[in-house]
Amino acid sequence: MRNNYLFTSESVTEGHPDKIADQISDGILDAIIAQDKFSRVACETILTTGIAFVAGEISTKAYVEIPDIIRDVIKDVGYCDASWGFDYHTCSVLTSIHQQSGDIAMGVDSGGAGDQGLMFGYATNETAELMPMPIVLAHRLTRRLAEVRKRKILPWVRPDGKSQVTVEYKNGKPFRIDTIVVSTQHSPDVTNREIERGIMEQVIKPVMPKGLYDPTGVKHHINPTGRFVVGGPMGDTGLTGRKIIVDTYGGHGSHGGGAFSGKDPTKVDRSASYMARYIAKNIVAAGLADKCEVQLAYAIGVADPVSVLVDTKNTEKVSVDNLDKLVRKHFPMTPRGIIEHLKLRRPIFRKTAAYGHFGRNEPEFTWEKTDKVRALRKDAGL
Amino acid sequence: MRNNYLFTSESVTEGHPDKIADQISDGILDAIIAQDKFSRVACETILTTGIAFVAGEISTKAYVEIPDIIRDVIKDVGYCDASWGFDYHTCSVLTSIHQQSGDIAMGVDSGGAGDQGLMFGYATNETAELMPMPIVLAHRLTRRLAEVRKRKILPWVRPDGKSQVTVEYKNGKPFRIDTIVVSTQHSPDVTNREIERGIMEQVIKPVMPKGLYDPTGVKHHINPTGRFVVGGPMGDTGLTGRKIIVDTYGGHGSHGGGAFSGKDPTKVDRSASYMARYIAKNIVAAGLADKCEVQLAYAIGVADPVSVLVDTKNTEKVSVDNLDKLVRKHFPMTPRGIIEHLKLRRPIFRKTAAYGHFGRNEPEFTWEKTDKVRALRKDAGL
Ligand SMILES: C[S@@+](CC[C@H](N)C(=O)[O-])C[C@H]1O[C@@H](n2cnc3c(N)ncnc32)[C@H](O)[C@@H]1O
Ligand SMILES: C[S@@+](CC[C@H](N)C(=O)[O-])C[C@H]1O[C@@H](n2cnc3c(N)ncnc32)[C@H](O)[C@@H]1O
Repeated sequence: MRNNYLFTSESVTEGHPDKIADQISDGILDAIIAQDKFSRVACETILTTGIAFVAGEISTKAYVEIPDIIRDVIKDVGYCDASWGFDYHTCSVLTSIHQQSGDIAMGVDSGGAGDQGLMFGYATNETAELMPMPIVLAHRLTRRLAEVRKRKILPWVRPDGKSQVTVEYKNGKPFRIDTIVVSTQHSPDVTNREIERGIMEQVIKPVMPKGLYDPTGVKHHINPTGRFVVGGPMGDTGLTGRKIIVDTYGGHGSHGGGAFSGKDPTKVDRSASYMARYIAKNIVAAGLADKCEVQLAYAIGVADPVSVLVDTKNTEKVSVDNLDKLVRKHFPMTPRGIIEHLKLRRPIFRKTAAYGHFGRNEPEFTWEKTDKVRALRKDAGL
Repeated sequence: MRNNYLFTSESVTEGHPDKIADQISDGILDAIIAQDKFSRVACETILTTGIAFVAGEISTKAYVEIPDIIRDVIKDVGYCDASWGFDYHTCSVLTSIHQQSGDIAMGVDSGGAGDQGLMFGYATNETAELMPMPIVLAHRLTRRLAEVRKRKILPWVRPDGKSQVTVEYKNGKPFRIDTIVVSTQHSPDVTNREIERGIMEQVIKPVMPKGLYDPTGVKHHINPTGRFVVGGPMGDTGLTGRKIIVDTYGGHGSHGGGAFSGKDPTKVDRSASYMARYIAKNIVAAGLADKCEVQLAYAIGVADPVSVLVDTKNTEKVSVDNLDKLVRKHFPMTPRGIIEHLKLRRPIFRKTAAYGHFGRNEPEFTWEKTDKVRALRKDAGL
């Protein structure tokens, strides 16, 4: 990796159509798991003008009223008025749910992975969250966009929005913010000048870190199209699983391609990605490396991973052979082992479906705990 | 990066539900572009038992019969019989298409990017295609799966299938194949023994490279669930844009998160990813580096990228400052410049929607041309 460069990451608000789809899928998952924690759920959502369509494979003993959950999520997100382009109580709700394929269930019932695939986890000590700086900053902006809307600090802000932050790295460390892009859906009666001032003073300045953000030196693009009244599913069709880089590390490191939302934890796309983050984060938190990326890969119906790769990008403080051994010793990697260790059979997923699955400190995010630090350090002789 | 490790990548056949969705989206795009090359298209597909639903934003002067295109793609893919789980002429086809938001069109009409976002391109000299070995091998297996089905070499093979290849790297180079996973949908009347033998002899052995593949030393997982009769959209809901790592580099290097299929080239998610590959490939082909990753990032409505990063992972043969300059000099990076240089206003996209967008040698894949090698070498003084 170069030492001096610009790196860009983006985030979207909970009102972005792809993110509404993720929240609907995880809202349904949570409602089902709350009643029957062994349910198999694979739930996909597509949203377009006036329509929310949910399809998927669900095997459960639970009974939930899926249309109500869909409408609740859309309401919580903030689309409550047809004049905003989407309205939770008048939109059309379609569902097409069937059972998990018996052929797949067979492989999963015996403890095997619910699919083949590759998953990555990443951690770096460049922020307190042990996350890459650009994605941390991008999420701060979209969270704040939602906040100024909900608290009516900027009453003309509407639910759909995006942010993007370009960070200049020097000697491999975040040095300054180079460019910020913010786009927010807005009411038709506000001027571009007002938007620019409001976003600048109430969104960007309050949440950008003083040490990296010098307002005069940063290029700002605030609502660069010049108009963003049409938003949400009316401006852009939303689908579950289409913000997988926003969900993870903002493009720092690799991605295996699997989406998270709507999937119960027997799907390794989700559970093994959480475990890979947990491993990487504990290694960095233990001081065994400055950066760490973990790849896990599975075959469908097989419990043990077919490959495990721990890559510190040459920042390790102990030998890589030793690291490999520590990882195999301290971290379970079968679907069952992961589910138990991270307590994933709980209705904790809707919260993950906006502002990132990683770098969060809410107690449900068990995969963010650094509770293996002491054992790792001891075993590494540190 | 470590020097000795296992790395895993996967591929899926054209009959995988997510890939059918991609092919439908790109089939519609091609039909529209063929009539009106300045069309704006963002076309998303979801497929589940008995249903194909297409939604999106399309502004065009063309007239196409979308349901016919959808049925044609499903037929070509091979789902022609309800007893296989999906049937092109009896499935339900739903569409909900509206125009591109005028607010977005405004920014794009003036030559700006159709969205914000980050895009990566990658190349490595570890294969002739200048692609990472694991994804090249994974695609060979899925292509061959389709071939043995279509040519009836294995008459019990059905359209849905997946492959996964774990490659052992030694000293940073592919050294041997460690594990192969192949799952194929099949007719109910074939035994697991027949499947195993057929896949082994007719699919794996004919396409795995002798130098890397020692059949006795490789772990094979062939249809590891033990049964895969239910397949296609009946076994798993398919969505456009959900195989973005299969579409690109198999998890080697970074991904910006944007999907390709169904998007006209004013969408930088697609066009800038193609340009980033073209840049990276020409740099490696010119011998300026062994590996190269390029990140481009855009703000919506703005033509020039907000950041450009060329990263050779420390394999450069000329200074990185020099590389940066060469890239800026030789490669256009505005949406218009990219579209013109790579000739993207043509109906060439459906072909890209299965077996990867990169590492292909069909003439339409202009982003794979190494026609900048001579100019780059000359300027670099090589
Ligand atoms: C630009 S749209 C993607 C392209 C779209 N499907 C089309 O056909 O043009 C992607 C996201 O950008 C945001 N967006 C929508 N309208 C916008 C506007 N007028 N200005 C800036 N951002 C906008 C929304 O968050 C939307 O989900
Ligand atoms: C395992 S499914 C994903 C999980 C699924 N949504 C569920 O609810 O169980 C992913 C892909 O695996 C493949 N697949 C489907 N059935 C399979 C089986 N019985 N054995 C192996 N692979 C299968 C298909 O290519 C399918 O698209």
